Amino acid sequence: MENELHSLESIIEKNLSGHDLEEFNRIYYGRRDNLPLKLKESSFAAAEEGNFDVAGYAFPAALEHTRPPRIVRLAVVQHSLGTSTDKPVHEQRQAIYEKVKRIIDVAGEEGVNILCLQELWSLPYVFCTREKQPWCEFAESAEDGPSIKFLSELAAKYNMVIISPILERDESHGDVLWNTAVVISETGAVLGKHRKNHIPRVGDFNESTYYMEGNTGHPVFETRYGRIAVLICFGRHHSLNWMMFGNNGAEIVFNPNATTAAEGGSKWMWNIEARNAAIHNTYFTAAINRVGYETFPNEFTSGDGKPAHKDFGLCYGSSFFCGPDGVRCPGLSRVRDGLLIAEVDLNKNRQIADRRCYRMTQRLDYYVQSLSKVVELDYKRQIISEFEKQ
Amino acid sequence: MENELHSLESIIEKNLSGHDLEEFNRIYYGRRDNLPLKLKESSFAAAEEGNFDVAGYAFPAALEHTRPPRIVRLAVVQHSLGTSTDKPVHEQRQAIYEKVKRIIDVAGEEGVNILCLQELWSLPYVFCTREKQPWCEFAESAEDGPSIKFLSELAAKYNMVIISPILERDESHGDVLWNTAVVISETGAVLGKHRKNHIPRVGDFNESTYYMEGNTGHPVFETRYGRIAVLICFGRHHSLNWMMFGNNGAEIVFNPNATTAAEGGSKWMWNIEARNAAIHNTYFTAAINRVGYETFPNEFTSGDGKPAHKDFGLCYGSSFFCGPDGVRCPGLSRVRDGLLIAEVDLNKNRQIADRRCYRMTQRLDYYVQSLSKVVELDYKRQIISEFEKQ
Repeated sequence: MENELHSLESIIEKNLSGHDLEEFNRIYYGRRDNLPLKLKESSFAAAEEGNFDVAGYAFPAALEHTRPPRIVRLAVVQHSLGTSTDKPVHEQRQAIYEKVKRIIDVAGEEGVNILCLQELWSLPYVFCTREKQPWCEFAESAEDGPSIKFLSELAAKYNMVIISPILERDESHGDVLWNTAVVISETGAVLGKHRKNHIPRVGDFNESTYYMEGNTGHPVFETRYGRIAVLICFGRHHSLNWMMFGNNGAEIVFNPNATTAAEGGSKWMWNIEARNAAIHNTYFTAAINRVGYETFPNEFTSGDGKPAHKDFGLCYGSSFFCGPDGVRCPGLSRVRDGLLIAEVDLNKNRQIADRRCYRMTQRLDYYVQSLSKVVELDYKRQIISEFEKQ
Repeated sequence: MENELHSLESIIEKNLSGHDLEEFNRIYYGRRDNLPLKLKESSFAAAEEGNFDVAGYAFPAALEHTRPPRIVRLAVVQHSLGTSTDKPVHEQRQAIYEKVKRIIDVAGEEGVNILCLQELWSLPYVFCTREKQPWCEFAESAEDGPSIKFLSELAAKYNMVIISPILERDESHGDVLWNTAVVISETGAVLGKHRKNHIPRVGDFNESTYYMEGNTGHPVFETRYGRIAVLICFGRHHSLNWMMFGNNGAEIVFNPNATTAAEGGSKWMWNIEARNAAIHNTYFTAAINRVGYETFPNEFTSGDGKPAHKDFGLCYGSSFFCGPDGVRCPGLSRVRDGLLIAEVDLNKNRQIADRRCYRMTQRLDYYVQSLSKVVELDYKRQIISEFEKQ
């Protein structure tokens, strides 16, 4: 970990200054100055003690005549494991809870309204092992499992909506597993859940060994602070997935991930997809990635001709927020735990939509017709061939 | 122009070196080294004389057992006007031809197989004026207009497929105008055309004053060198547009633009959309933008409360190529004319598709059903509300 680069941002900060830095920020982030939020001294002290980073940025909007600003504080958390993966399941989980509680406490003190944890936050990212035991023991109820109980208390304490992406065990439907994000309202009650829509098959890495494509559609959760959706991990590679959450009225789409530097979840794609989604759908997005190397008790291969190994590579963190105009803030570290806060004015969505008219010009009815043909088995592609012509 | 930044790349080259530069390249471009193509001395000499830049990069693929490599040389051209916009139409056009011929000659000598020009390359980007005369005189036949004749000769001379995005006048259907890309095969014959699918309405800027949404679907052109498509300008904001060209079998999608630093075509979105499209659809993309400030004889306003003016702002060039894995090459300048060459192995597309399985996991039939409901007037959004629940 010590040799790993902290972040692209850290390279830029170290080497650029003055006009060059301003111009880089303008072209890369979308603004010359990244508008830091003023956070409390106590937050930085708690972060130092807990060995995580904390940062915050503002995403303002223009004042309107008829609507007051809709200022909401959002936060995302990226964290590594709390202890080694050869410990008993409950010990591993408890160690994560303790780590995450420290971070959520800071978010609570900063007045965060909606917070999202990383994908499968309450367990190691075990799927690379292809072992079922003991890992399936981490699966839990989306109604009253230990992780939900743990977060419900914090949600109620801080009046905070908390999104909890877990491995769900659905006892009432044949005891099957799902990759599920549970939305806990600021009262501490479970508001609802969404199950991951697209399951990775990348090289030999196939999460459908553990759970299948979700059956919850594209729900949007109307909370006291705004309409939110959760698009889980691999679904970020599918434009239609992002689009459907927009069609259902999402104002903020949280995208919790567990992705490594392997090709399928590659770091050079990290800045692209959640940002493209924000632009094309005119909503805020939050890209969240777990962080750190996770090592497992038994060795496994990865279908790449390389020797058996015990780790899955670096989950590279780098969580960030993006506005509906495509403007993003600097990301968290590639290697350290962190809390990233964004103070956003949700009025920005409509302001950008009214200006850019992407929905108005999208011709959705036309594409419904086109795609209806594409899915037919005998679809004939629209090809104009040089060879047929001559 | 002299105070304008040359490119984001130039900031990086100036300030970064060694490990920092490698790491920036790895995270930003997707590779540590940008694999420059060795170009001829005569190309650099011609570029210097013609006052444009020339650069080339390789996009290799792995060797396969059963398919030979499919190496193709692609090129894009970005250029400013040849003379001032108060000159007679034919003089303006001739000046552009002379400038573009110099650049295509270099591409020809470098063995380029497929070349794409910028949007509406044979005229100034006049729509900001909202004047009809003399600008509509630039419209021409997509079969045998002067620009097609000019390029047909060069295409045949260099055995080069040339994509010519023009303002089309369709005499055989009521003399209407279209924003059209004409594909000229390497024989010099017109292979076919595509008309722009989505028309900008951004702020007061509305190109449907001049032409309407195209009626040519999403054609893919099967040429001697590969299957290509052309997605024109504003259509890049629409994920389904990119997707349909992929569904029809495109291996390379050229995206010619005329976009300025105004919000709707903002520079910080430039690196995002053509790259996201390459990733989500597993094909090569080329993002092409015209370059320079264009000034018009009469002043006009832009619906932004600012005083009347005579220019539309900087078209910021920055043309680049991206592979199906999301790896891109450095872009051309923000301010200078240029020729960018990419030597790509088209086998890369299938290699990435087989590895990442994005098509296989896209659930298109499911989305056809969902979107069919969305377009109904009485669509009820899937919202889980905290307020209804309590």
